[in-house]
Amino acid sequence: MAAPSDSDERSDAEQAIMKATYRALCKHGYANLTIHAIAEEYGKSTAAIHYHYDTKDDLLAAFLSYLLDRFISRVHEVETTAPRERLDSLLDRLLTEREGYQDFMTAMLEMRAQAPYNDAVREQFQRNDEYTRYLLKTVIADGTDSGVFNADDPAHAAEALMLIVDGARNRYPSLDDEDALAEARETAREYVEHVLMAE
Amino acid sequence: MAAPSDSDERSDAEQAIMKATYRALCKHGYANLTIHAIAEEYGKSTAAIHYHYDTKDDLLAAFLSYLLDRFISRVHEVETTAPRERLDSLLDRLLTEREGYQDFMTAMLEMRAQAPYNDAVREQFQRNDEYTRYLLKTVIADGTDSGVFNADDPAHAAEALMLIVDGARNRYPSLDDEDALAEARETAREYVEHVLMAE
Repeated sequence: MAAPSDSDERSDAEQAIMKATYRALCKHGYANLTIHAIAEEYGKSTAAIHYHYDTKDDLLAAFLSYLLDRFISRVHEVETTAPRERLDSLLDRLLTEREGYQDFMTAMLEMRAQAPYNDAVREQFQRNDEYTRYLLKTVIADGTDSGVFNADDPAHAAEALMLIVDGARNRYPSLDDEDALAEARETAREYVEHVLMAE
Repeated sequence: MAAPSDSDERSDAEQAIMKATYRALCKHGYANLTIHAIAEEYGKSTAAIHYHYDTKDDLLAAFLSYLLDRFISRVHEVETTAPRERLDSLLDRLLTEREGYQDFMTAMLEMRAQAPYNDAVREQFQRNDEYTRYLLKTVIADGTDSGVFNADDPAHAAEALMLIVDGARNRYPSLDDEDALAEARETAREYVEHVLMAE
């Protein structure tokens, strides 16, 4: 599986548009996200956005790809190769509260709920998910090889952890469950400790 | 905590409208759900629906309450009092594929994603979630008292299982992850077996 590029090959303009998209999503939610609202955050005309992205769907798929690249570059900053520490840092990254996160997660859940109706967006969500599961599966398989973990099926273990992560992404905005991220981090820890760790 | 009524006190008309709402949601999705579409499934006029439910939000909150009552009445059919068997039957009920489920889960995820913008719907989702967690917590606490389980914090264990359930409800429609329910059932089994069961 080819890893997405670690260095950001987006032009300065494209990076600025991605950041403007993030702010517009937090401010307006997904249902009210327009190219106009993004242009307002970008500080330029809608034409300046359409120069880079033909349609809103193209822009949204590019935005999801941008989020994946950011996630990957943060994950690559972690310098340890010890499987347990690498797995913990992946889970920390996936399940840590950040400033403005409630608004962002609310908008992302809306976008996911619309994914069944939007091929470009659904396919990019699937790519992001596949790559994240690949990172989890690899560290779990490495840890099993070196005797730290004891996973019969690293692919299932990776999916199990993603179920917990996606449960938090569902509960946090839709039930206003402020503790969902912390509860999910603890549930993932229990899964690692009791299901994955070798005796 | 007062349990919702086990017997269905809805009138025949109200029950027929709830069933029509289910079919309309599966057919049209949440974004395109109108009182007109429900009336079409019901086989009567929109006025016949508005006689029972003032607004679409009232109807949707009533529909979520109807789903909870159906879930509870199915759960009450289980005759064993053995904690492990009762917990397994709750998890089976929450994580079993049913006919037409993909369309229904797609519509429900849309409705959940809109919950942050709709007080009546969000509050009813919260009540449904609270009651389901209460059922899980009670059986886990009973099992801990009788020495079958070994849960330090039954409320957290109930939330952990709900994270796995809601992960499947998120992944199944948004990632087109057909295996999400079976993977989640296996993950819940691992959690029960390795985290909750007494040595």
